[in-house]
Amino acid sequence: MNVLIIGGGGVVGNRLGASLAERGTLRGAEIDRITLADVSDPPRIDAKSVTVDYTHCDITDQASIAACLTEDTDVVYLLAAIVSAHAEEDFATGYAINLFGTWNVLERCRTLGTQPVVVFTSSIAVYGGEVDDPITGQTFLNPQTSYGAQKAAGEVLLNDFSRKGYVDGRGVRLPTVSVRPGKPNRAASSFMSSIIREPLGGQQAVCPVGADFLHYYLSLRKCVQNLVKVAEIDRADLGRNHVMQMPGRTWSIRQMIDAMTAVAGPEPAKLIRWEDDPQIQSIVNGWRFDIHADKALALGLEADESFEDNVRYYLEDDRPTG
Amino acid sequence: MNVLIIGGGGVVGNRLGASLAERGTLRGAEIDRITLADVSDPPRIDAKSVTVDYTHCDITDQASIAACLTEDTDVVYLLAAIVSAHAEEDFATGYAINLFGTWNVLERCRTLGTQPVVVFTSSIAVYGGEVDDPITGQTFLNPQTSYGAQKAAGEVLLNDFSRKGYVDGRGVRLPTVSVRPGKPNRAASSFMSSIIREPLGGQQAVCPVGADFLHYYLSLRKCVQNLVKVAEIDRADLGRNHVMQMPGRTWSIRQMIDAMTAVAGPEPAKLIRWEDDPQIQSIVNGWRFDIHADKALALGLEADESFEDNVRYYLEDDRPTG
Repeated sequence: MNVLIIGGGGVVGNRLGASLAERGTLRGAEIDRITLADVSDPPRIDAKSVTVDYTHCDITDQASIAACLTEDTDVVYLLAAIVSAHAEEDFATGYAINLFGTWNVLERCRTLGTQPVVVFTSSIAVYGGEVDDPITGQTFLNPQTSYGAQKAAGEVLLNDFSRKGYVDGRGVRLPTVSVRPGKPNRAASSFMSSIIREPLGGQQAVCPVGADFLHYYLSLRKCVQNLVKVAEIDRADLGRNHVMQMPGRTWSIRQMIDAMTAVAGPEPAKLIRWEDDPQIQSIVNGWRFDIHADKALALGLEADESFEDNVRYYLEDDRPTG
Repeated sequence: MNVLIIGGGGVVGNRLGASLAERGTLRGAEIDRITLADVSDPPRIDAKSVTVDYTHCDITDQASIAACLTEDTDVVYLLAAIVSAHAEEDFATGYAINLFGTWNVLERCRTLGTQPVVVFTSSIAVYGGEVDDPITGQTFLNPQTSYGAQKAAGEVLLNDFSRKGYVDGRGVRLPTVSVRPGKPNRAASSFMSSIIREPLGGQQAVCPVGADFLHYYLSLRKCVQNLVKVAEIDRADLGRNHVMQMPGRTWSIRQMIDAMTAVAGPEPAKLIRWEDDPQIQSIVNGWRFDIHADKALALGLEADESFEDNVRYYLEDDRPTG
């Protein structure tokens, strides 16, 4: 069993690689090799008994994909993408990576003829505009950002390549991962982690929205567990749409901060500065949060039990040491 | 006012050109030039006072698009596509024309910076799989053919280019056009016109499905009228999804044949031979027919009043003479 993680240098891809290495098996088979592929050098992971390769891969370049996605690749995780604010600023690059890059990976699989499992990460950014709440598996995808549009079109491709038998595709729309370890990035959602992560590390953070702002979240630990499960779902259980909402939970900023206080005491919350940012608000206020993930829940994927749990997972798994 | 019809050699595009030439105006302005562009030489139309150009255009070739879509193009109708059965047989060509061709046209508009009106024809083939009836503007697009997938992804592109202000895009999902003049084509829906058209012309036709088979239809005359109206809708009325279902009506094969008999007497119906075709049935039985087009109806688009009307329109507009 050889697993390729495209986007293996990112927070989710790298942690997924570490989790698979720790686990040692996937889809009932022993993992022989995990390849972490990315445009920048992926951080090293603890390999245990599994061989881990680190390789450069640019999904805008078909030859670059062909070099790491080969006949002996059994499972491909396609996590590589540029994030929402970046895709909104740079239209051409967003499409080149997020849509045509996805096409290139799927086409490589079709050309190989080996029908690998392909796990594709979509996003709740596919929802938006004039559709009724709650968001369900029947909801019209109506993205209001280029990032969301690229993911929505990628879902269509994944489903069609799967229907034709060129890949054994599975897609999941990721909730916003919070608490996300590492540094702020160019996603408009970046603050949704920094307001917890930075105060827990004794640093100030800025909250650009009000305390009542609602959004749909999942911890990194559960997200990675779900990504493993998605690869293991029986194909027959996927039905005629292979993409589903990954379960998350809806919290207000106030609930998140209260949870941090319940776990870590009153000091961190004092490090949050409240500064409205109309530009960020104009993006995130269009995002949907009343989201139901019935299909994924029925197939065994899980949300966090509480945001307190989420904070605890972050402290156990990710708190910077030293 | 210069209008470019890409796919101007097809049945719908050519009739649309003739209708616009007859009309002489679009969006409140006098039409100076209509360009009918296609991969094969478009049939000549009656020009009246409007200049009509006929030109070659292959939407898989960016230079070919640039030659006919220029700074003085005000309205683009993008009707060029390969049909369902063809796209299902030839995966690569289907994507090259129906998806990447659409991308190429939209990118040409973005590069020009002139924000032309772009009318894109999608299809009821975007519906399918496990979604509840009736189909509404809120229904998840779940295509079960490559043609439908290409159209669904094209809708996403049109909406995103519109949201960004690169085009003034409008999309309509066409019902099956019947009675469609001309010859049978490679669409799985081809019989839905031949069973009326051939008998009205004194020829035999084969019906590969049962008399109770239900589907969603529109006459060519109303389809062309609607395509004109779509270009004229106020942009503000389109909301945050610029693609809508074009109104049609659901008829059984029996209702269609009864309507033909009511209009043309009992002889034509005797020319229909009933021969089940499992291959065609396997495609068309997955198509949806309980479809509501509320948004388009509110914006002034229209369905046929009856299939009798539809048969009359065909006889008035299209019956081969001589």
